Amino acid sequence: MSNVQLGLVGFGKIAHDQHLPAIAETANCQLVATADPYTSLQGLPGYQDMQEMLDAHPEINAVAICTPTHLRYTQARMALLQGKHVLLEKPPGATLSEVESLVTLAAEQGMSLFAAWHSRFAPGVAQARDWLRERQVQRVDIEWKEDVRVWHPGQPWIWQPGGMGVFDPGINALSIATTILPQPFFLRQGILQIPSNCQTPIAAELAFTDAQKASIKAHFDFRQTGPQTWDIHVKTDDGELSLTQGGGRLVINGEIIIDAEEREYVELYAHFVSLIDGQRSDVDISPLRHVADAFLYGHRETVDAFAE
Amino acid sequence: MSNVQLGLVGFGKIAHDQHLPAIAETANCQLVATADPYTSLQGLPGYQDMQEMLDAHPEINAVAICTPTHLRYTQARMALLQGKHVLLEKPPGATLSEVESLVTLAAEQGMSLFAAWHSRFAPGVAQARDWLRERQVQRVDIEWKEDVRVWHPGQPWIWQPGGMGVFDPGINALSIATTILPQPFFLRQGILQIPSNCQTPIAAELAFTDAQKASIKAHFDFRQTGPQTWDIHVKTDDGELSLTQGGGRLVINGEIIIDAEEREYVELYAHFVSLIDGQRSDVDISPLRHVADAFLYGHRETVDAFAE
Repeated sequence: MSNVQLGLVGFGKIAHDQHLPAIAETANCQLVATADPYTSLQGLPGYQDMQEMLDAHPEINAVAICTPTHLRYTQARMALLQGKHVLLEKPPGATLSEVESLVTLAAEQGMSLFAAWHSRFAPGVAQARDWLRERQVQRVDIEWKEDVRVWHPGQPWIWQPGGMGVFDPGINALSIATTILPQPFFLRQGILQIPSNCQTPIAAELAFTDAQKASIKAHFDFRQTGPQTWDIHVKTDDGELSLTQGGGRLVINGEIIIDAEEREYVELYAHFVSLIDGQRSDVDISPLRHVADAFLYGHRETVDAFAE
Repeated sequence: MSNVQLGLVGFGKIAHDQHLPAIAETANCQLVATADPYTSLQGLPGYQDMQEMLDAHPEINAVAICTPTHLRYTQARMALLQGKHVLLEKPPGATLSEVESLVTLAAEQGMSLFAAWHSRFAPGVAQARDWLRERQVQRVDIEWKEDVRVWHPGQPWIWQPGGMGVFDPGINALSIATTILPQPFFLRQGILQIPSNCQTPIAAELAFTDAQKASIKAHFDFRQTGPQTWDIHVKTDDGELSLTQGGGRLVINGEIIIDAEEREYVELYAHFVSLIDGQRSDVDISPLRHVADAFLYGHRETVDAFAE
């Protein structure tokens, strides 16, 4: 097995809350240092930027990039050019073109590039995919509704270009849907609701279809107070499936198949180590492509200004 | 050589003005019929829709799809499933995901799929590409400015989602830039100016870069009166190149290399016949991907309402 000596680039909320404990649980993966201009971890070498970290620790052979989206391309490119494997937090870039360019570079350099979609590692996703593979999908309802004030306090970047607004959580739903649905699907109609003081949508209604003309509806909303909803319901020619709680709970024809605590990032890091071990990459841009399609083809409506 | 028996699907302005004369000049390609609910050509069988045309003329082995963008996927899919080769006018679809899906289907069906970018067949493009291939690009200025009232009279679809606004001509510039520039490039910053009564931009300023940090600027404007501008200027480590008049005129280091009448669609159809002959497809989505990136990552500004 490879021994992964990891550098964490960007040590914000997601790196601290999710990456750190997951790395600690991952066999054959040691966290060597962090690179972040603002924070570091007590007891671990911390550097202002990635290059400083890589210069000080030539033993680092892989980096996990958790910086703001628009910085990721340059950092990933620098790391790949220096012969490091790269894990990209979701979304893998600010634009599709820059991600495509990294795929080419990783192949040229012989390094593993992993565009990580954490929701794909939720407990019920793999079994949902396997069950649906044999069936004809007729109708899909995706409801992804959460309270932006709870989940993104003090994060104005989410309302700026590249922040994606409600597609920041919505892309998680799309990363699951593109995994479990047996056919590719594409947008037929979309409505994006943009607060008058924001660049990105606070809510979206999307109608997709696939080659078999299934009706696939997604409703994303950032204004949900009270209980939060991260559910996907699928009706097929042979029964119904519900993947709820962000993928943690799987119910098929009324029977609870899985109801488990999520360990998404532990599974995600195990996959990264296995990619490095197998000298493979895993970059599926389809969730980000769906978001770009929605921005390209969706109808925009201006709604009330957002105040945090 | 293959004998292409062609059906024209969507017989609007572009089909009439460009496809029709080009097909007449193309060896081994005969126009059999048209499918359009509103118009037909005197002396040629005309049908209300594509399926009616294909049913009446089983000898048709290829279709050119020139319908409004949002209709193209369904028609292309139907044609591929019936064993017809397909040419898609630009842009090849309303979304990236539907174009990806057609690529897969064409390969499965063993049919040629051609996402046609007519500007790539402008007289100076091939030589500009060859000259730049050996050089290091330092700076690119793309100016694509035309009068929407002259070029798109009575075409409100251009201001609707999918119509792409100023990116309808701008994508031609992008289709040339992605051909002649030796490195892939990607958006770093974008400003989209949207009229207050429209869904799509009337002007755009885009700043791209490539892996060698070249500065690539594009300025698209639909409000240009008087002389029209379709120019690309490239500064390299070894001289300068100007591709102007939409690609018709090529000047290198002050010397006129090419100054020719455009025959874009004649070249385009010759390429389609050669693709069919070689059992190949040619689908480069990079121009549409750049537009989607601009919609995804560009900063929007509201400007004066547009009145035709």
